[in-house]
This record gives sequence, structure tokens and C-alpha cells, in this order.
Amino acid sequence: MSEFVPPTLADIRSAAARIAPHAQVTPVLASPELDALAGAELFFKCEHLQRGGAFKFRGACNAVWSLTGGEARRGVVTHSSGNHGTALALAARTRGIPAHIVVPEGAVAAKLANIERAGGILHRCAATLAAREETCAKVQRETGAALVHPYADARVIAGQGTIVPELLQQVAGLDVVITPVGGGGLASGCAIALRALMPDTPLVVAEPAGADDAYQSMRRGERVTDIQPSTICDGLRATIGAPNFALLREHRVEVIPVPDEDTVAAMRLLWTELKQTVEPSSAIVLAALLRQRERFAGRHVGLVLSGGNVDLDAIPFQGAPG
Amino acid sequence: MSEFVPPTLADIRSAAARIAPHAQVTPVLASPELDALAGAELFFKCEHLQRGGAFKFRGACNAVWSLTGGEARRGVVTHSSGNHGTALALAARTRGIPAHIVVPEGAVAAKLANIERAGGILHRCAATLAAREETCAKVQRETGAALVHPYADARVIAGQGTIVPELLQQVAGLDVVITPVGGGGLASGCAIALRALMPDTPLVVAEPAGADDAYQSMRRGERVTDIQPSTICDGLRATIGAPNFALLREHRVEVIPVPDEDTVAAMRLLWTELKQTVEPSSAIVLAALLRQRERFAGRHVGLVLSGGNVDLDAIPFQGAPG
Repeated sequence: MSEFVPPTLADIRSAAARIAPHAQVTPVLASPELDALAGAELFFKCEHLQRGGAFKFRGACNAVWSLTGGEARRGVVTHSSGNHGTALALAARTRGIPAHIVVPEGAVAAKLANIERAGGILHRCAATLAAREETCAKVQRETGAALVHPYADARVIAGQGTIVPELLQQVAGLDVVITPVGGGGLASGCAIALRALMPDTPLVVAEPAGADDAYQSMRRGERVTDIQPSTICDGLRATIGAPNFALLREHRVEVIPVPDEDTVAAMRLLWTELKQTVEPSSAIVLAALLRQRERFAGRHVGLVLSGGNVDLDAIPFQGAPG
Repeated sequence: MSEFVPPTLADIRSAAARIAPHAQVTPVLASPELDALAGAELFFKCEHLQRGGAFKFRGACNAVWSLTGGEARRGVVTHSSGNHGTALALAARTRGIPAHIVVPEGAVAAKLANIERAGGILHRCAATLAAREETCAKVQRETGAALVHPYADARVIAGQGTIVPELLQQVAGLDVVITPVGGGGLASGCAIALRALMPDTPLVVAEPAGADDAYQSMRRGERVTDIQPSTICDGLRATIGAPNFALLREHRVEVIPVPDEDTVAAMRLLWTELKQTVEPSSAIVLAALLRQRERFAGRHVGLVLSGGNVDLDAIPFQGAPG
């Protein structure tokens, strides 16, 4: 990562043009019921309706189409607990190149099935960062594939950032935008774009209280990497990336830690009121808003629903009281 | 019903103008995964994202705003197992008038909660057609409220029919349209509009095999009213209305009976692939298409997802294999 150069708004604009032939312009949905509950006007950017069921396709697609012809021919490789793996496989398919996906033990079954269906070649490894990186390096040596890191990658960050100009074109006058934060690709890309396009509209990010490394890192002013994640939000268990953390600091992004029980309640609300089958890692943005209801009252809030790859055999509110 | 005059395309156009200030233009969603599965191009008209979570708002709203000022002041009354009740309550609220909703025992809890939240005044009765009509008549006598029948009402049929011109404006070149059929308000309204606007594009309707009175009626050429409904599709248990049946016959609408197990499988697909929390009565349209895959292969198919008011404590595929 020594040569990491953060993307600019121009890079995000280029990414938007690069992915346009392949990515969906996702709709923005609203619900009078949820607005009444929140006491605010909520605009949900539906990235769970993106190709592959998550925003991850944007970054993966930008990375794949940024490769030279010679690089691309050898394929791409990544490690991912799920959505980024599917996204990279789908993106690689748009260019007709192989995608090697290193998946940790314990990943959500529905997400692994999605990766395989998208044409990705699975490589299983232990559920540690060391094992993932080692397996990735081995695949790289053997195939010459280009590594597309899930979040600590400027091309990926630029791709995820394309959500913001798209959202701002769909909804005028947003007072604040909320995204989830895991490794920080989405958060840092959106922070760059939002600061450039609407400097008075802050980005707030929601993080599971049981995997609050970004929150702790921002508080201490240095990257905290020793937290053992314990959260239902399987898409947000990654440790914040070094370049991602630097970008969140630079743009003074605020992190709201959210207990899983709030996220589960918000997920239920999104299923029943917005009628959208989003995953916990998406629902956390509504949970964060509802935890600080007074602060967001009366505001126009953009909320990024990041993904919808739910395992219907493990719905967290099965049997929960209505 | 002696004075029943079926609506024309002009009535449907008037209804569209009448409800425009209140109703949502619902989005059309697609899924490459579902297209691949069906071998066809599927365009899902998302009426579960209509106000109140179902297409029923269109008809109710048209009825409410068709009343004279004097009629409106005394309110409206209906009997409904759920979605029409919520719709009428919401529609009445847009005009500031009371809505009396007669609900049968055994109605879905989530739907009753929706009616109350929409401001409807609940009147409970036994789960028979006779009890419903008697209770309705009593409320009418006591309040002077205008009856807005869930489906055997020309204003309601015209309102439901507004889906078709809206859909045809969103998607060009549809070869066929599929809606569910219960009492037949949606089916007959769509049949009128489709015949007028795209006479070569047939309407096909999906009906639960366990409540196949429309299917039996069309086969026999006379209205069958003695079937005891047994289906998970709580929105499709009503007996086909007399004027609705006449319209389905006139427009030679084909009915596909669908076993509940197919509907449950289709519902799971819509949740996982389209990421839409639709109810069984919606999912039946995809189930009907998948039952006759060869027939629809290669076609452009419009499918009306009619509602999304699901009881999350009674998901039919809980614990089902992936």
C-alpha cells in the first residue's frame, strides 16, 4: 500500500463513466411511515438493488475495467467474506476474465452460493486476516492475477464513491448522508465525493458496536486493529483499512456505534415498511439514525442501503414479537 | 349491483388523474438472475411500494375522490381482509373523512395494525360473507357512510386499472401481463385497460389452486361461488365478483391455478433475488409464470406485484432448505 494515492472527485467521475455500461443506477425509495417514525425525511439509496445485490459491484467494476489488457488477461483475485467476492466475479465476467475469490471459513452460505453463481473460483482458507492474505498471495504467484483488495484500494474507493454524485442527482438538498462502515471503502469514497460536491453536508457512518474499530480509531487518532469482531453484520466485520482510516480522519467523518439489537429492529422496519429485503449491514444506517432521533429530526437524510444478500434460513427476528 | 356500468379506458384515465396527487408512481424492477431462471424478460410492477403497501390504494382513492362533497362528509365503509381496508382508510384520510372497516375474524394481524395506523375505524365480524355484508349494512344505516366494495365497484375497478397505462409508459413492448386474481378488481381493471391500449397483449391472471373460483367459473361459463378457500394467499381468498367475472369473460382472460407450494417458492425467490418483501398474493404471479416456463420463454412479461404486507412472524419458508 506504500504507493496509495487517494482518489479525487475527478477519479470518482471517471469511475462513474467506466462502470456506467455495467452498473445499475439504483433507485431511491422513501416511506411515509418511516418518515413519521424518524421525524425526518429519509431517502434510501437502494444499493441492495445493485448488480450482485450490493454496492460492492461499483468498486470491483471500476477496478476490473481500470486494468490494462495484459493485466486483465491474467484475471483478478481477492479475499472477501461475501459481497465483494460476488461483485468481483460479476465484474470480471463483464470483461471475460477469471476471478479468484479467497473466502474464509464461516462465511454466509447464501453469499458463497452467489459468488459461485457469478462465476467466481472459490479458494477456501481459515478465518484470519493472515490466512486470507497468504492464500491471496499464493493465487497471485500461481496465476499472475491482479489483487483487488475489498477496500484498501484507490480504484475500489473511487468506485464506491460513485454512489454520492448519483444520489445527489436523484435527491436535492440533503442535509446529511449515512453509510455503514466496515473496511471503509464505501465510507471513504463517499466522504471524498460528498466533501467535494456538498461541503456542508456531513457524512456520518454507522458501525456495529461489537466491531467498532473505526469508532475507536477515530477517538484515539490512530488505527486500532486488535478488536475481535462480534456482530450480526457479517459485511462489517473487517478492520478499517489504513488508507480508509486516513481518509475518514481527513474528512472528519463521525462514527456512530450501533448495538446489534438496534440493527435487528431496524432491519425488521425496513422489511415491513420499505418492503426491502436488506441485510443487517444495511439496516444499521437506519438504526444509527433512530438512536440519535433528535439530532436528525426535521432533516433530509440520505441513507445508503448497502446490500441485500440475506440468508433467509437465518433471519434474526424469526419468532420475535411484532 | 343492478346499476353496475363497467368502466371504460376514459374512466381509467380519469381515475389516473384523480389519484395522481395522492398515489405513488410505483417503480418497475428487474433481476438478471430471475430473467435467467425464467428464460424471459420480467418486468415487476412494484405495487407493494404503493401507499399502504398494495395496489388497493388506487381503487380506494378513486372511489373516495369520486364522491360528492355531501356524500364524502358521511364517510366510507367497506369490508376487507386487509389491504383494501388500509387503502380505504388512507384514501379517506387524504380527504379528511372517516373510514369504517369491517374486518373478519382471522385476518392477518399485520394488516389489521396497518388499518388502525392509517386511521381506519375497525368493526369486527365473523369470517363469512353474510356476516361481513350485514355488518357493513349496519354501519351504513348508522352513519350514512358510502359503501366502497373491495372489487365489485366500477370506481374501484377503474382505479386498479390505472396500473396498466402507468406500466406501459414505463416498459415498451410487453408481450403479456400477469396479475393475481381474488375478487377480480385488479384483474378486470387491467383487462379493460390492456385490451384498449394493447389489444394484442393478453392479460393472464394467477389464482391459488385452493381458491380457484375464478378458474372454475371461466371453465364452466358461470360464476362459481361455493368454493371454500384454502390458501396461504390471504389477499386472494375472496370469491370472484359478479361484474368482475363478467369482465374477465368479456376480455377472455386466462386463469392459471397455482398450488401454494409454488407460490411459497416464488416468494422466496422474490425476496432473495429481487430483494422485495412481497406477500404470497404477489408472489403467485411469478409462480404462475414458472409453472408454464416454455410458454413464456423469450417473452417480455409484465408482472404486477400486488402487495407487501407480510406478517414477519409467519414467514412460510422459515427453516425451509436453501
